Amino acid sequence: MSDRRSALLDAAITEIAVNGTRGMRIELVARRAGVSTALIYHHFGDRATLLQSALEHIGDRAEAYTGDPTGAGLERVITVLANEIQDDDAVRTNSAAWGELRDTSIFDHALRPTITALTRRWTDDVANIIGHGQQDGSIDPAVDAHAAAVRLTALVEGISTRWLTGMLTVAEARSHLAESTATMLRREAP
Amino acid sequence: MSDRRSALLDAAITEIAVNGTRGMRIELVARRAGVSTALIYHHFGDRATLLQSALEHIGDRAEAYTGDPTGAGLERVITVLANEIQDDDAVRTNSAAWGELRDTSIFDHALRPTITALTRRWTDDVANIIGHGQQDGSIDPAVDAHAAAVRLTALVEGISTRWLTGMLTVAEARSHLAESTATMLRREAP
Repeated sequence: MSDRRSALLDAAITEIAVNGTRGMRIELVARRAGVSTALIYHHFGDRATLLQSALEHIGDRAEAYTGDPTGAGLERVITVLANEIQDDDAVRTNSAAWGELRDTSIFDHALRPTITALTRRWTDDVANIIGHGQQDGSIDPAVDAHAAAVRLTALVEGISTRWLTGMLTVAEARSHLAESTATMLRREAP
Repeated sequence: MSDRRSALLDAAITEIAVNGTRGMRIELVARRAGVSTALIYHHFGDRATLLQSALEHIGDRAEAYTGDPTGAGLERVITVLANEIQDDDAVRTNSAAWGELRDTSIFDHALRPTITALTRRWTDDVANIIGHGQQDGSIDPAVDAHAAAVRLTALVEGISTRWLTGMLTVAEARSHLAESTATMLRREAP
């Protein structure tokens, strides 16, 4: 993706986080990015395409900051999930905008295919790491990897909102995720 | 609460669910309730008070439909959590409006004390049932009841959104909650 296009999407994500999906105004996105509204339309065509592109960009940004940790499967799952919560404005904005677009898609069905595909990609990635953990012996082989991935990623969304609304600190939120993951996946001591 | 006041809040909750917190227009709430905008202002004074009253009403409605089940503690926890997800328009609207107001409170700090107090009340209720389960032997006494309640209620929020966006059916969502609750709380067979 070009730097210009990426910068426009960063501006859109911030506007969505702060003003909500329905409150996102193209003029404010343009002003935040320091460009004309015409340039926004040139790149994205219409508002619906901009929203969809912003959603995909949120997914790409999250994949970048959750990283690709090494180590045993259980530790890798804990790290990628906990990395969704970081004391960093870009992470906070990304997570808030994801929540806004996700909640908008409850009634705005145009966004649903994208949010569903991104959620599935995320869930499949986590299930894949769980599978590695079952092979390396760090995760209970009796766990249903897909079901556990659905539950753990849903838990990340719930815990993230508690963090974003100030009910949990970063450390508390990450600790809840780490302990829940261990409880759900850990192999019992023989 | 008077029936009239309750009906006005029901209308506000539906408008919030459908149009978002920032998109909620007093005129549309009034039209939906079949009253004048003046009557809305008469009851609630201003928009901020209406939003806060709607949030409290969402909490009361949820307490009514999650119920007060009987039985052993573990089964009671599973039932109250699963009852947050029901194939019922009023439950769906309530859950969607809760999500909208909760996410608005990320940037709108005026709503935070109310959402925090309601979340704490919900978490304390669940922790209390977990405590009963530890006394009746259905729940592992080593579980930290408060921490487990935070995780389980956050999971309900994450799973509810998957349901509201059509990614999980009611049955799938309830099954994920029941199995996660059992995994987190169940006493190991001796």
